[in-house]
Amino acid sequence: MMEKFTVVKVGGAVVEDAQQLDTLLHAFCAIEGHKALVHGGGRRATKIAAALGIESKMVGGRRITDADMLEVVTMVYGGLINKSIVARLQALGTNSIGLTGADMDIIRSHRRPVKDGIDFGFVGDVDNVQGRQLAHLAAVGIVPILAPLTHDGTGTMLNTNADTIAAETALSLAESHAVTLMYCFEKPGVLSNPDDEASVIRKITRIDFNRLVAEGTVSGGMVPKIENALRAVEAGVERVVITRADLIGQEGCGTVITR
Amino acid sequence: MMEKFTVVKVGGAVVEDAQQLDTLLHAFCAIEGHKALVHGGGRRATKIAAALGIESKMVGGRRITDADMLEVVTMVYGGLINKSIVARLQALGTNSIGLTGADMDIIRSHRRPVKDGIDFGFVGDVDNVQGRQLAHLAAVGIVPILAPLTHDGTGTMLNTNADTIAAETALSLAESHAVTLMYCFEKPGVLSNPDDEASVIRKITRIDFNRLVAEGTVSGGMVPKIENALRAVEAGVERVVITRADLIGQEGCGTVITR
Repeated sequence: MMEKFTVVKVGGAVVEDAQQLDTLLHAFCAIEGHKALVHGGGRRATKIAAALGIESKMVGGRRITDADMLEVVTMVYGGLINKSIVARLQALGTNSIGLTGADMDIIRSHRRPVKDGIDFGFVGDVDNVQGRQLAHLAAVGIVPILAPLTHDGTGTMLNTNADTIAAETALSLAESHAVTLMYCFEKPGVLSNPDDEASVIRKITRIDFNRLVAEGTVSGGMVPKIENALRAVEAGVERVVITRADLIGQEGCGTVITR
Repeated sequence: MMEKFTVVKVGGAVVEDAQQLDTLLHAFCAIEGHKALVHGGGRRATKIAAALGIESKMVGGRRITDADMLEVVTMVYGGLINKSIVARLQALGTNSIGLTGADMDIIRSHRRPVKDGIDFGFVGDVDNVQGRQLAHLAAVGIVPILAPLTHDGTGTMLNTNADTIAAETALSLAESHAVTLMYCFEKPGVLSNPDDEASVIRKITRIDFNRLVAEGTVSGGMVPKIENALRAVEAGVERVVITRADLIGQEGCGTVITR
């Protein structure tokens, strides 16, 4: 039987708030087996960029990253947020290490090509995650904390979507481990009734998904989220869990997306 | 015979200039055996702090680090400068990892006590460097790149002098390795004639030092620099080399301080 490995992705809203971060990290520490955390930090980057007189330009919710903005995200994601998480985990007795894709050459990417006239600048699309290196760290008791930054192998850091890093990291570990990929969002799970937080759908397979979309139970932003989750499980991840950050340490939390 | 380990300390002036950094990193890659790099970055931190409206207060050349300044140095040292170095080393074929003291719990420190009415704020004095962890990384071919940041074990990062981190790191490795500690400065070595760069003093022992000070050949800022170097070799470091950043890869460069 393969060892368990849990990859948790948490967005900026949680890690940028001291209280929510504290709750998340306690819950994260409660997860048994090997684990890694991938974090965002976009709001903080936007705020610090603004204070430096650098305007944040977004297209379809994605940040255009020019040279100045690349410096900001490298500072904020790789330094400020990443190291705050690592220092707090050490205080909780969880030995961790903060990484960008450049560290140990963990994640290489290439600069996203200009498409439909949109140049995202220094934004990377992931080519390769060295899952073996991450598994080696985990095996010696060190928990990787991944900032949403990769590198191109020729000396340039690239701003990279944290959801994608989490999914690619999970996939890179799936050959050797039974991988759970957890996405934190603001609800306890996918709800069958949006007004009732107790209406969490426990399990979604491809067949369930098709039915839920046809019925209209799942719509809007949840559709691509679950579609991506299904792709991850179809590619080898054991299960994807969608839940709230404070619940991640609880067995059976959230909505489980599986084959 | 013990394996060689070279710890190089380089200041902000070199790492903040793209061309000088490039020269340094090429020279660093040419160093044979295990190695680690400790970097500064104070000028850049001062500049970014100023752009954010945060004033830099210095006492005796040391930065007062309040909560806002701690965020700036965590961003600039741990993110911007550290990751730029790592990404460039990867491009040069040297597999490296960027670390603060919090990562893998490598360096713990305690907040400097208020003395003579001066509170340096979030400044750490080093308690312990886990040399074994650094040696383990080096043994598997990963070069540690250390930012001048440590942690106190209770969740707080602390701004820490890079020279001290370099010396403590060298000492932590001295039980298991033949350690060379290299300090980069603007001259090719300690000069017997300040106007002649060819007048590098090749070797300084404690006896030589006493004579050089008595003669007035060594004076000013060089006195504490060499005194610290002598203390390091007396505590177990094999030799300390003082030289210019572009020369570090050359056998026999600079001034060697030894027992």
